[in-house]
Amino acid sequence: MSTSTSPLALPFPSLPAIPGVSLRVARARYKNWDRCDLTFVTLDEGTSVAGVLTTSKCPSPEVEWCRKALPLGTARALVVNAGNSNAFTGNRGRAAVEAIAARTAQHLGCEPSDIFVASTGVIGVPLPIDKAEAGLDAAYTAEPCAWEDAAATIMTTDTFAKGAMTTAVVDGRTVTLAGIIKGSGMIAPDMATMLGFIFTDAAVDAMFLQRVLSEANGTSFSCITVDGDTSTSDTVLAFATGKAGNMPLANDDDAGADAFRAALADLCRKLALLVVRDGEGAQKLIEITVEGAESDRSAHRIAMSIANSPLVKTAIAGEDANWGRVVMAVGKAGEPAERDKLAIRFGATQVAQGGLAVEGYDEAPVAAHLKGQEIEIGVNLGLGEGRATVWTCDLTHGYISINADYRS
Amino acid sequence: MSTSTSPLALPFPSLPAIPGVSLRVARARYKNWDRCDLTFVTLDEGTSVAGVLTTSKCPSPEVEWCRKALPLGTARALVVNAGNSNAFTGNRGRAAVEAIAARTAQHLGCEPSDIFVASTGVIGVPLPIDKAEAGLDAAYTAEPCAWEDAAATIMTTDTFAKGAMTTAVVDGRTVTLAGIIKGSGMIAPDMATMLGFIFTDAAVDAMFLQRVLSEANGTSFSCITVDGDTSTSDTVLAFATGKAGNMPLANDDDAGADAFRAALADLCRKLALLVVRDGEGAQKLIEITVEGAESDRSAHRIAMSIANSPLVKTAIAGEDANWGRVVMAVGKAGEPAERDKLAIRFGATQVAQGGLAVEGYDEAPVAAHLKGQEIEIGVNLGLGEGRATVWTCDLTHGYISINADYRS
Repeated sequence: MSTSTSPLALPFPSLPAIPGVSLRVARARYKNWDRCDLTFVTLDEGTSVAGVLTTSKCPSPEVEWCRKALPLGTARALVVNAGNSNAFTGNRGRAAVEAIAARTAQHLGCEPSDIFVASTGVIGVPLPIDKAEAGLDAAYTAEPCAWEDAAATIMTTDTFAKGAMTTAVVDGRTVTLAGIIKGSGMIAPDMATMLGFIFTDAAVDAMFLQRVLSEANGTSFSCITVDGDTSTSDTVLAFATGKAGNMPLANDDDAGADAFRAALADLCRKLALLVVRDGEGAQKLIEITVEGAESDRSAHRIAMSIANSPLVKTAIAGEDANWGRVVMAVGKAGEPAERDKLAIRFGATQVAQGGLAVEGYDEAPVAAHLKGQEIEIGVNLGLGEGRATVWTCDLTHGYISINADYRS
Repeated sequence: MSTSTSPLALPFPSLPAIPGVSLRVARARYKNWDRCDLTFVTLDEGTSVAGVLTTSKCPSPEVEWCRKALPLGTARALVVNAGNSNAFTGNRGRAAVEAIAARTAQHLGCEPSDIFVASTGVIGVPLPIDKAEAGLDAAYTAEPCAWEDAAATIMTTDTFAKGAMTTAVVDGRTVTLAGIIKGSGMIAPDMATMLGFIFTDAAVDAMFLQRVLSEANGTSFSCITVDGDTSTSDTVLAFATGKAGNMPLANDDDAGADAFRAALADLCRKLALLVVRDGEGAQKLIEITVEGAESDRSAHRIAMSIANSPLVKTAIAGEDANWGRVVMAVGKAGEPAERDKLAIRFGATQVAQGGLAVEGYDEAPVAAHLKGQEIEIGVNLGLGEGRATVWTCDLTHGYISINADYRS
């Protein structure tokens, strides 16, 4: 599975320390490798937590554990295992998550429900409890590490480490938000779950944090797709340590609530886009904007229908301005659309309008746009004011090689 | 686009003449080629007709024409154009369909609404009326041709001509049903629409024919997918000439109604499977059966979720018994499923049961099964009695080559 770095990779940014957050990594050796594969993040007392989890009906025991712990709203540690997703492992998988939480709680002197756990890697193999416990013990006594080390340790098929940051002014203080993420397909349960972790020193009430994270998810992680496949383990968690000393955010009209909400949405979008940039086999990042729909929800569904169409994605891989495939994807979405009102653009050039091709449109700027790494497709349905933007990548021989020319 | 014949191709079968049906082909030269690309089927007076059409919200004018003509229930001719789908061409596209129907009606001395039209090929280019009319005139005076000629003339990216037949005893008489079909993706609007045409000498009331065709569609054409993409032009039409002389079938309890229904369903399934066998890049035919679902509808949705998963399809291409990807696809379908009741088999071998891998299952028969051309995946949800079978093909480098390494 050694693949070269995605051509769309970005360098790891400089991320500041977040007061109240300590990062450590260790070698649990979940697979026969010598890399760090266990990430251990400790969080000072008073840290609030929120999360969004896979909608899969067959979630991993880690997802079930987080779903149960989230309503309590407090966190003291995050443990992330790479190399084994522990999904579809029955009672033994559940026992492994419970053992990790218990051991960590013992180290920190807290409740097991304050420990959040996520795992990514092969499925169907129960996470070995002895390796997890030894890895945890090693991490607990290790020196703190840098963001990039943690971001690299949660990787599986990812080809580059992914992180982002932003700031906001809340209650007169500058708060920092930083996040790391992994994901490369959207997402294979066996190899490429999306896991994202966000940390801030802002003081944020857990319920409010949950609300703004869910909102941010709606315009970020829910708007990306590599292959339309949804993992059994997808997890995004946000932790707020409160060390910035602001009055805790709890309501929409609190000072700085809007700024924090905007900053979190910005960070989530940055992190989500990094996953698309590392999409399996991706050569191009595709931004699809649908406007003029009957509602935002309808626009989103149509945009995802386009983003998930293998024929649209292969056309972009072939640098082909094949707007007919976009029409097809609009038509199959099952949402209100009228063929004779439809307009389509590639980059800034309208190629179809009013139900037919724009006669004699200038093909040169379209061809130039399609040769680039960042492709924009715009669809105007001409029906209403609904609007959505989603992101995907092209579908290439690389995707097939990664997923077919490989035996589990 | 010259690709070699699908490894899953079947030889064209021997199909009998259907009394009341005459097949002719001609060169309209819709593209710069020298092959026949216009198929002209005349039907004796008294022929009833039924059809199922694409659910796309952006259908071709041909689809709109057929949708309007079908309720009248009578047919005298079918015209099929290959090389130009006439989709997304505004008023000029509508005018082309009207011209074809008018010219044909003039030749036959019937109403334009008795003429059914279907087109497949590039989109966005209005079908040239002069070429269509010249082609029609040539076809009208041509000698009748064989089924295989007609089946080849409706092809676009298809790699082999597709036809099938069956018989039934109705009212003491043996009636024959024969069909031809084209399709290779499911389905690109620009290249590979699915068009299917079924002919029988049985006497069948149009409303009854419509009902049994819709039923048959539910277990055949609606159960296949190559890439999850739905064409703007998908069309299946069934014509019944009545020449067999049986008492016209009009009700479920008419003599032979059950036999006719079963024969039609059988023929539709045969034709649908031929399309999957010619799926773009297909190396393997995959049959997915979901049972134990809460309802048949729920089983169908879960089966289609598996069939449309790029990760499942690439795993089969790689001959990899990756049941984790099947779990993922069940989980993302959004239908009732319980992880700990799920059982999965490849061929006859159970690989997962009760929410985890079957310990020490014999991998040899699984590996042997996956090396074959016809793959069976079975999923038992353990919830109820809902059941569905769908068919797809694997996702290979060939699919990418056909769809990305090509410029329209």
